[in-house]
Amino acid sequence: MEIPHIPIPKPIPYLMSKKPKYTYEFGKKTDGNASEAMRALLGGKGANLAEMAKIGLPVPPGFTITTEVCTYYYANKKKYPKVLDEQIRKAVKSVEKQLGKKLGDKKNPLLFSVRSGARDSMPGMMDTILNLGLNDDTVEALVASSGNERFAWDCYRRFLQMYGDVVMGVQKRPDEDEEPFEVAIEDLKKELFPKEKGEVDDSLIDGEAMKELVARFKKLIKERTGKEFPADPWEQLKGSISAVFSSWMNDRAIVYRRKYGIPAEWGTAVNVQAMVFGNSGEKSGSGVAFTRDPASGEKVLYGEFLTDAQGEDVVAGVRTPRPVAELKKVLPKPFKELVAVQKTLEKHFKDMQDFEFTIEDEKLYMLQTRNGKRTGLAAVRIAVEMESEKLINWKTAVQRVPADQLDQVLAPIFDAKAEKAAASLAKGLPAGPGAASGRICFNAERAVDMAKKGHVLLVRVETSPEDLRGMIAAEGILTARGGVSSHAALVARQMGKVCVCGAAELEIDYHSRTLKVAGKTFKEGDYLSINGTSGEVYGGELPTAPSEILQVLIDKSLKPAKSKSYKNYAQLMDWCEKATKLGVRTNADSPKQVSNAIAFGAQGIGLCRTEHMFFEGKRIDAMREMILAEDTETRKKALKKLLPYQRRDFAGIFTALNGLPATIRLLDPPLHEFLPHDNASQRELAKTLGVSVASIKRRVEDLHEFNPMLGHRGCRLGNVYPEITEMQAQAIFEAAAQVIAKGIDVAPEVMVPLVSFEKELAIQKEIIDRVAKEVQAKKEVKIKYLVGTMIEIPRACLVADEIAQHAQFFSFGTNDLTQTGLGMSRDDSGSFLPYYQEEEIAPANPFASIDQSGVGKLMQIGVEGGRSTRKNLKLGICGEHGGEPSSVKFCHKVGLNYVSCSPFRVPVARLAAAQAALEKK
Amino acid sequence: MEIPHIPIPKPIPYLMSKKPKYTYEFGKKTDGNASEAMRALLGGKGANLAEMAKIGLPVPPGFTITTEVCTYYYANKKKYPKVLDEQIRKAVKSVEKQLGKKLGDKKNPLLFSVRSGARDSMPGMMDTILNLGLNDDTVEALVASSGNERFAWDCYRRFLQMYGDVVMGVQKRPDEDEEPFEVAIEDLKKELFPKEKGEVDDSLIDGEAMKELVARFKKLIKERTGKEFPADPWEQLKGSISAVFSSWMNDRAIVYRRKYGIPAEWGTAVNVQAMVFGNSGEKSGSGVAFTRDPASGEKVLYGEFLTDAQGEDVVAGVRTPRPVAELKKVLPKPFKELVAVQKTLEKHFKDMQDFEFTIEDEKLYMLQTRNGKRTGLAAVRIAVEMESEKLINWKTAVQRVPADQLDQVLAPIFDAKAEKAAASLAKGLPAGPGAASGRICFNAERAVDMAKKGHVLLVRVETSPEDLRGMIAAEGILTARGGVSSHAALVARQMGKVCVCGAAELEIDYHSRTLKVAGKTFKEGDYLSINGTSGEVYGGELPTAPSEILQVLIDKSLKPAKSKSYKNYAQLMDWCEKATKLGVRTNADSPKQVSNAIAFGAQGIGLCRTEHMFFEGKRIDAMREMILAEDTETRKKALKKLLPYQRRDFAGIFTALNGLPATIRLLDPPLHEFLPHDNASQRELAKTLGVSVASIKRRVEDLHEFNPMLGHRGCRLGNVYPEITEMQAQAIFEAAAQVIAKGIDVAPEVMVPLVSFEKELAIQKEIIDRVAKEVQAKKEVKIKYLVGTMIEIPRACLVADEIAQHAQFFSFGTNDLTQTGLGMSRDDSGSFLPYYQEEEIAPANPFASIDQSGVGKLMQIGVEGGRSTRKNLKLGICGEHGGEPSSVKFCHKVGLNYVSCSPFRVPVARLAAAQAALEKK
Repeated sequence: MEIPHIPIPKPIPYLMSKKPKYTYEFGKKTDGNASEAMRALLGGKGANLAEMAKIGLPVPPGFTITTEVCTYYYANKKKYPKVLDEQIRKAVKSVEKQLGKKLGDKKNPLLFSVRSGARDSMPGMMDTILNLGLNDDTVEALVASSGNERFAWDCYRRFLQMYGDVVMGVQKRPDEDEEPFEVAIEDLKKELFPKEKGEVDDSLIDGEAMKELVARFKKLIKERTGKEFPADPWEQLKGSISAVFSSWMNDRAIVYRRKYGIPAEWGTAVNVQAMVFGNSGEKSGSGVAFTRDPASGEKVLYGEFLTDAQGEDVVAGVRTPRPVAELKKVLPKPFKELVAVQKTLEKHFKDMQDFEFTIEDEKLYMLQTRNGKRTGLAAVRIAVEMESEKLINWKTAVQRVPADQLDQVLAPIFDAKAEKAAASLAKGLPAGPGAASGRICFNAERAVDMAKKGHVLLVRVETSPEDLRGMIAAEGILTARGGVSSHAALVARQMGKVCVCGAAELEIDYHSRTLKVAGKTFKEGDYLSINGTSGEVYGGELPTAPSEILQVLIDKSLKPAKSKSYKNYAQLMDWCEKATKLGVRTNADSPKQVSNAIAFGAQGIGLCRTEHMFFEGKRIDAMREMILAEDTETRKKALKKLLPYQRRDFAGIFTALNGLPATIRLLDPPLHEFLPHDNASQRELAKTLGVSVASIKRRVEDLHEFNPMLGHRGCRLGNVYPEITEMQAQAIFEAAAQVIAKGIDVAPEVMVPLVSFEKELAIQKEIIDRVAKEVQAKKEVKIKYLVGTMIEIPRACLVADEIAQHAQFFSFGTNDLTQTGLGMSRDDSGSFLPYYQEEEIAPANPFASIDQSGVGKLMQIGVEGGRSTRKNLKLGICGEHGGEPSSVKFCHKVGLNYVSCSPFRVPVARLAAAQAALEKK
Repeated sequence: MEIPHIPIPKPIPYLMSKKPKYTYEFGKKTDGNASEAMRALLGGKGANLAEMAKIGLPVPPGFTITTEVCTYYYANKKKYPKVLDEQIRKAVKSVEKQLGKKLGDKKNPLLFSVRSGARDSMPGMMDTILNLGLNDDTVEALVASSGNERFAWDCYRRFLQMYGDVVMGVQKRPDEDEEPFEVAIEDLKKELFPKEKGEVDDSLIDGEAMKELVARFKKLIKERTGKEFPADPWEQLKGSISAVFSSWMNDRAIVYRRKYGIPAEWGTAVNVQAMVFGNSGEKSGSGVAFTRDPASGEKVLYGEFLTDAQGEDVVAGVRTPRPVAELKKVLPKPFKELVAVQKTLEKHFKDMQDFEFTIEDEKLYMLQTRNGKRTGLAAVRIAVEMESEKLINWKTAVQRVPADQLDQVLAPIFDAKAEKAAASLAKGLPAGPGAASGRICFNAERAVDMAKKGHVLLVRVETSPEDLRGMIAAEGILTARGGVSSHAALVARQMGKVCVCGAAELEIDYHSRTLKVAGKTFKEGDYLSINGTSGEVYGGELPTAPSEILQVLIDKSLKPAKSKSYKNYAQLMDWCEKATKLGVRTNADSPKQVSNAIAFGAQGIGLCRTEHMFFEGKRIDAMREMILAEDTETRKKALKKLLPYQRRDFAGIFTALNGLPATIRLLDPPLHEFLPHDNASQRELAKTLGVSVASIKRRVEDLHEFNPMLGHRGCRLGNVYPEITEMQAQAIFEAAAQVIAKGIDVAPEVMVPLVSFEKELAIQKEIIDRVAKEVQAKKEVKIKYLVGTMIEIPRACLVADEIAQHAQFFSFGTNDLTQTGLGMSRDDSGSFLPYYQEEEIAPANPFASIDQSGVGKLMQIGVEGGRSTRKNLKLGICGEHGGEPSSVKFCHKVGLNYVSCSPFRVPVARLAAAQAALEKK
């Protein structure tokens, strides 16, 4: 695949020089920093290593190979720039000089870690190599220098394992359930401790056994790849760097980027850093920590560590790590340093940090820091609390909450009574708050399939990046091993998945596909429930209840003062209110929906679909009578029957709105949607209406269309049958008059759908204005109303200047605008769109997020055209994109007045709108 | 209806003055002329009257009320500008002064004609009033001044008749076959000449009888309208002007404008002119003449006249007029003047003129001149001959032939043998050349219905503007009365309808719906055939043969030198070649079509639809096998069977093209189109393929789409099933290699359909390039080819800059671009589009002529985007619009390189392309 040259945010002078700079050192001499431009070039990890080195935190020296090299690599058939090799050698020499060690030296060898580092963190998605530089010679030097044979050979076997997997491709086959290297370890353990039934701790493997493992690993590599493991450290370095660059395009990285909208063009950097050893004994260790709790947002030093372990052990969840608080007892000196680091980091980076550290012989080293991923719940709490701590201002606080995660705070929780009555089977770490029930599944691939039929809980001993698809598909994740910084917890947090991890009581057997816990056995497909806020695991399917915020806002069953999460939410929404330019309305067809949406802060209805009102009870009969009418008179008679229903519906909605505006769309769908298509229903209808079945069949056939999306619908109905528009206008204005009579303000905005020719709207507006005049005269009332149109056909965007002559507002109907603008029927796209997303042919699902380069351009043309005719034209959007954050931001950018979305998406839209307004400044 | 202010081509200073000028005089003092700006303001008739007055031709004085008044009238609820009345009174006074007469004067009354006059001539579509100013008093003055009682009362009864009809609305009811005034005349004739069986000539009605007729007409008006005929000449004038303005919006005028694309906003002018009397005796007369034969194009003074008649008599076809040549004997002095006028007119206007004259007491008056409407055949001949006469240059000649009429020269003629064998039943005037057969119908409304089921000949005693819809629907027109300037001939000429008029032998009985001729009786629904080139009428349905030009070009059955019409055509095409910038290709799927198109001058294939090739014989089985395949292997196997068929087809096409380029579109339609949908065929297919019927049914169901237009088709197929693209590319390149091996050049242009994302094309191009490379290597041949895409989705236009990275050419697929851009399925638009055209909601049928403000704007965006990336991007169009003149001109304007159309439209496209190029200069 060809990748164009990446755009670097700011031009950097040396890029113009003949010899570009591809490596950046950090340590005693530091070239980079954490600026935006550097982050693009060095990746997040590299930029922050440089920044930490600059502010004096203890960072082992090393260098970063830039993302430009990655781009070059893919654009040039996996070749490197010529000058790179020289620059790497120079950078290695600099590290050697700082530490007085040498790569490949038999006496005092320098060892490296090689890690990926993209602009945005993609945890676990790409590959890492540790202990690079070891071979049969240098390992002996390590034995000598550390005086610890087991440690040295353990490092060596770890290096072999990683190198074999990542660089040489020794991985589990589809028919295998475990990694071959892990199997080799387990086999050796069984040989060494044949009587042991439970798990044998790695620490029981001694130096001799490690040597044996190294031999077996080498053999395994040779067997599986046909190649020898390379002893030359420079070859190792080259191979490792290539492997990291290659992992940028592996499956899980692509899936991840797609989910989080990271452009493939950004590329990854590679960080080559001197090794420090958390596994050199009991005075050493590795850990991962957060400056605040990433699940709940609470302000505590939060995290975990393992003594005598490398960082990878903590993250991978192989050994269950210990809470970081315990470090105080175990290694008090480095713990004290860690607490100081926590403060320094938050003060410097002004955001919750997620950092990795290693302790080598009681000395603390910082290996990484980054802004911590957090759940939606935590995001809200951290933002609100950091503002009150004066670490950030309210504007930054608003921008800190990912809008698409805000709905997590509205997600259901378990019904309190039911949860109390249920017996907890086990308790793990509450890694992703919320309530989830579903059928359990022990394999990620199977979970994807099962999820098509209903809710699934993915249950694993531990998860790994290969499980990503299954984790996306699952409702919740439950693991037996691993802490809050394990892969499972990390991914769940980021996706807002309900997650309980490290529930050690679980006995999971992948082969028999069973889970034993608390004396019970659950088979794949059985129901479990997990509470990701408390960590409890329950059998069966527990009933859920609305979230605290909903209990305050909608049920009113909870007092605002009693809910901390409501208070945080309310504070955030207040700030949003202050920032926002863009209004947020709701798509609602009933008074109940209207009330809910108003509770969430909706400023009116952006789309009331009148046709939904025609399906209830007897209305459908009158509707069908109208459709079957062969002449205007009969049609008018049927419409007369529909009038009182519509009037009542509108009166209800106007009352609920209490003066807020309501955009009411006139009849839109093709008429055949209202007719029965099977024989039995046709017979019944014939009886009800007293006509022949044949006549009904004929009319159904007459109305059949090859492409109903592009057929006789929208204002094409109201133009060919003006009496329909007349009836609807009459219902709207008579309802308005009724409600006004009760002393309630009313602001109807009558919306004509599917306009593509200005005259379509002109004629409809004439009818609506005439009926409005008649009703106002008859009822002796003044009704303030607007007439406008939905812009949902490409032509309408192109002739928006003409259409605006007759429109007091436009509302972009981005659902249909996407279908027509892309020539893609949403209902039919299932046969190719998933494939298109998989292959990145379509950059995102255009029905979820506005296709900005296509549909968005049409909208821009429409906005410009409309406003060129009518400067103050009111502009909105009522497609389903109105509740999707990036689309909301786009709407702000092109200058719409409001977005409209379903009631429960209103908070998300308000937040996105506020963020858009703040970004602009 | 609201009409916006019309745009006047050039701003005219007085429009800025406080008192706009609404009346323009002509006569001794002439305000106007025939410039473009004046034509917009005064209409064609008014402008030319002014021009004729200016160059000294004898024009009775009068004045023109501008088209601006018409616009004002409709924009202001049929009110007039305040100053208009004063200006009219002033203009009337000026005419009174010139002639020494006075409106309403009892001694020397001035009489007026009031005629419409739009910018483009709309003959017979609007209303006319003659002899205005007559009443019971002034008629006596006319008796005295003319010394001819019959003449004076005849004028009066004519005025009553027109005024009654046009201003007061006394017209035939739907249940009547004849006009009520005509019935009154016939009734009186029967009373006067009870023994007469045949037709009684109007001239036999004497003065006394005319008086009686006036009385009866007045009574008729009172009876039908409840109102008295107004005696006041000023009231008459006001009523007449209003009637003319109102007639701008009558049904037939609207139908006419729609057919000829005249904007309603132009409005009509009204010409008020002093009457001259062709009906004041045998030394008087009226006539209509052409400076050349408008049917054949021959250079003769051509036309007809009636003595003692007003002009309306000649046009209406009530009395059959005499050929204008006979005037030489009847009234030699005015005839001599007429011949001089013929020369003056052509010399001054440099085009064939269609003019009206009146002779009053041997004095010639010119009442109108305009560029004559002509048949396509005549247009070609006149243009070519005028160029050789040096009246015009070749560029003007090219612009003189209406492109949409050029296909008339290709229309079939009767098979020579069959025509010789058939007995001619009657002979009329050859008013519209060509051959037409069909079922006869005596009523225009019924003809519209009958035409839905097959060819119809409209047979009328004479036609009138009310018959327009029927004339449009009919294949040919046959009348018993009226000459070449009758309504029937005129309209037929303009529409290119086959027409024989004034076939006096026909006895038509509307009541019994029969036609008697040559002793035979034909009922409505029986077949007749008419030869509009010779005027012959035959019974039954004669077989047809290709036109002379086709006989030369395609059949090669006629030597070029033997056909005058071929020579004219060839000359015209040569000029086109010289002028043209825009290439013309053809849409062709077979070698035969290719040869025909090349004979017409096509420069290659613009669209070869590969799917058409899959329907023949056994191919459809292999195709179905491919579609039913459940995995890639089975699909590939089936594709392998299709390969040889496709290869053979392409080889045939390449051979026929002999080096010209061929744009080959890859598989486009949704797959379900290839599957059988009824039980029987499904069973048969199951048997052929050896699979279960159920599996076929399931697959058919799987492939069912709600909106197939917007579904899985186009390159979405080739992307999800790359093996299809592979097979097609292989067939194309292997065929190319075969043909090259025979020493024939080949230039395939592989076109990927329905692209909307750049990567869709990138992937397809990669496949095509790879296969091309493989085939070239294997066959050891170099194939020059291009890869490009069809631009047929709005998004593709908007991201054309991105798509052009991978496209060597674009071809606008305006069929689908119209469907998506307008959100309008062509197949489903029947339920509203005709209504939209009727109501002028859609300005034209967007599937026939490019919707320039919508789809055209998308094209422009696409052109700009594409060329911004690739300056020399080859651009074409392959939608059906490629053969429609206004669309071709649009394509030229936006800078396409070529258009493509069906073989028989190639000459039309070439002419339109040449005209576009010339217009630009």
